[in-house]
Amino acid sequence: TIDPERFRETFERYSEIGRTDADGLHRLALSEEDREVRDLFVSDLEDLGLEVRIDRIGNVFGRAEGTDPDAEPVLIGSHLDSQPYGGRFDGQLGVLSALETLRAFDDEDVEHRRPIEIVNWTNEEGSRFKPALMGSGAFTGELDLAEVLEHADADGVTVAEALDRIGYRGDQPVGPREEYHSSLELHVEQGPKLEDEGLSVGVVEGVFGMAWLEVVVHGDADHAGPSPMYSRKDALVAASDVVGAVRRLSNRFADDVVTTVGELEVEPGSINVIPSEVRFTVDVRSYDDGVVGDLVEAVEREVETACEREGVEYDLEEIWRIPHTEFSPRVAETALSAADDVGASHRAMVSGAGHDASYVNEITDTAMLFVPSVDGKTHNEAEFTEWADAEEGARVYVETVKRLADV
Amino acid sequence: TIDPERFRETFERYSEIGRTDADGLHRLALSEEDREVRDLFVSDLEDLGLEVRIDRIGNVFGRAEGTDPDAEPVLIGSHLDSQPYGGRFDGQLGVLSALETLRAFDDEDVEHRRPIEIVNWTNEEGSRFKPALMGSGAFTGELDLAEVLEHADADGVTVAEALDRIGYRGDQPVGPREEYHSSLELHVEQGPKLEDEGLSVGVVEGVFGMAWLEVVVHGDADHAGPSPMYSRKDALVAASDVVGAVRRLSNRFADDVVTTVGELEVEPGSINVIPSEVRFTVDVRSYDDGVVGDLVEAVEREVETACEREGVEYDLEEIWRIPHTEFSPRVAETALSAADDVGASHRAMVSGAGHDASYVNEITDTAMLFVPSVDGKTHNEAEFTEWADAEEGARVYVETVKRLADV
Ligand SMILES: NC(=O)NCCC(=O)O
Ligand SMILES: NC(=O)NCCC(=O)O
Repeated sequence: TIDPERFRETFERYSEIGRTDADGLHRLALSEEDREVRDLFVSDLEDLGLEVRIDRIGNVFGRAEGTDPDAEPVLIGSHLDSQPYGGRFDGQLGVLSALETLRAFDDEDVEHRRPIEIVNWTNEEGSRFKPALMGSGAFTGELDLAEVLEHADADGVTVAEALDRIGYRGDQPVGPREEYHSSLELHVEQGPKLEDEGLSVGVVEGVFGMAWLEVVVHGDADHAGPSPMYSRKDALVAASDVVGAVRRLSNRFADDVVTTVGELEVEPGSINVIPSEVRFTVDVRSYDDGVVGDLVEAVEREVETACEREGVEYDLEEIWRIPHTEFSPRVAETALSAADDVGASHRAMVSGAGHDASYVNEITDTAMLFVPSVDGKTHNEAEFTEWADAEEGARVYVETVKRLADV
Repeated sequence: TIDPERFRETFERYSEIGRTDADGLHRLALSEEDREVRDLFVSDLEDLGLEVRIDRIGNVFGRAEGTDPDAEPVLIGSHLDSQPYGGRFDGQLGVLSALETLRAFDDEDVEHRRPIEIVNWTNEEGSRFKPALMGSGAFTGELDLAEVLEHADADGVTVAEALDRIGYRGDQPVGPREEYHSSLELHVEQGPKLEDEGLSVGVVEGVFGMAWLEVVVHGDADHAGPSPMYSRKDALVAASDVVGAVRRLSNRFADDVVTTVGELEVEPGSINVIPSEVRFTVDVRSYDDGVVGDLVEAVEREVETACEREGVEYDLEEIWRIPHTEFSPRVAETALSAADDVGASHRAMVSGAGHDASYVNEITDTAMLFVPSVDGKTHNEAEFTEWADAEEGARVYVETVKRLADV
């Protein structure tokens, strides 16, 4: 069983790396802070006597051998990167629950028949480099490794260069070396449902489908004074129309639809100059993949209409699409019965946030555990999970891994 | 009379400093490029034997003594700073027309009773540092010198620091040392009227009133996936509503109203994060100062409505207001009759763009000459004026200055 004090101390120690003044976390994928936390993670794995390997996209694995060396391993873990000025729990709590599980087994020399592999996936957030779930997607073959290595951040630094800079372009091929038995990821819910119902644990049976679009509107720079209104081609007027339309699309097609414009940049960005170029992103989600397709088409129509109205040109690219996930009923049921046995209040649920577990589910039976997020808040420095809930989640996690790994 | 070849060569030489790949000009106020062009300007003034002085806000003056040392001087010139990725004509053509005027007088030892002062005003554009017309506004006392010296750019560098960095915080007090007789500024029109009517020269009798607002919308960062739509406080949704409303306000109150949102920045700017903060600017103009007041109030109401609708907070600040200008009929008539005598096609007009001449008009009788802008385009690398028009404008300029300076 877990050592609550050690678990919490470890969490505090990891949270120092990239901690913001407001107690959040700013630890973008493949940044200096990411290097530092990876170094700590590797040394913690080595202290446990695990065999550590790093693959060519920087995913970090540690392997605890089982009593049956031929058994298929169980894969556990999450991610250590954060959003810009994000929270300390998103990703990190899942990695550290997995670490605490292996430490707890080590404390009491627990024998597990199956090998257990712990993993820290590269660039789950998709904020500095797009798309999200990059390490797990490359690992499972759902994303093209050569292509994503060339994706650049806003400063033109590619994933490959960033990996080299922090010394985490490993030597291991990207992809499974063998069949896995199953996989389990713990994460904060990042939504309000568990808190609203006063529950400690969610057993996640599925994940929303989602699509990401990038739009560039090409207007024409001109003077805010002597340029008559009729002559203007204002890229920001068109883009703003789309932002409003994207918000309204959340009321279309299905009840569960969510739509967001998260990035928007204006060129040349001068108070008395009509904007010549606006680049913005659109994020649309629903559990129903058909609805996601409808949303993408609707966004395309809205962009076309708004740009035609303003007389401006545009480029639109769908940069990521991931279908909805249905996790393994077998693993979810194992988790549910573990939660029952631990005595944790729980419910089954689906996730509106994307997770590495979705890609992992393509290669092995996978499910997830959620713990509550206070006020449902995440991707925000104020992100918080009550420590009692984090511990309860870790207890259910340990219990589920025991069953999966044949203790 | 002017030397067209020298005039053009000088223009090309100045245009090299900060020239962009697309033949535009990127020479922000008090940047390295601004230092370089100032150095060239000072050396050109010294070559003409002028007494050069630089004041504490970096305005550069050169004085050509008149035959009557007690006569009030005539002030001529414009500005050498540019918009980000702006054009080569905006400001620079006015400074170089003034320089060519003094060179032409020097060529033929033209005797002028009145002293003539040529000036390059600091930070006319208002792009890197707000507000616009900073050097002339401080000189005439319309802007508070101590206050504007502390205004910072997007990187937090103040005007005072930037002046020190480029070595242009001069030792002269800011403000007129004596009464001026009159002032004349040549500039590109930056609008389509002269071109539409096939005219070479505009005699500017007035300038629009204008106001600049800065708005910061405070929302709440959260995840683009699991955050229910009802729970969102999306700063960008509210700001985009205002962008659309500002566009529609151009159809209110008066025919000549123009309204623009030129800057808009989103925090944290991550594809899967609900925007927590948006900062944007609003520029409203009309010849009627009452209409400018109505526009400011209307923008305030729109911001309040949009923010209330989204459940977000905001700060709104009016950062600049300048009433409309009525230039000196005496100087305008001098320019009109000079245009007649030179044989230049011309019309009287008002300007939608702000100019240093507006502030100068507060301390001495002032008017302006415009030359056409191809397609009315400006604040854009494609900004262009046919060379024949530039020369015609310079000829009228020389002829007007002759009359003002008592040749
Ligand atoms: N869990 C999480 O924050 N994932 C990031 C990918 C996304 O859902 O946008
Ligand atoms: N002429 C010119 O571009 N002035 C800048 C100030 C303004 O009108 O916005």
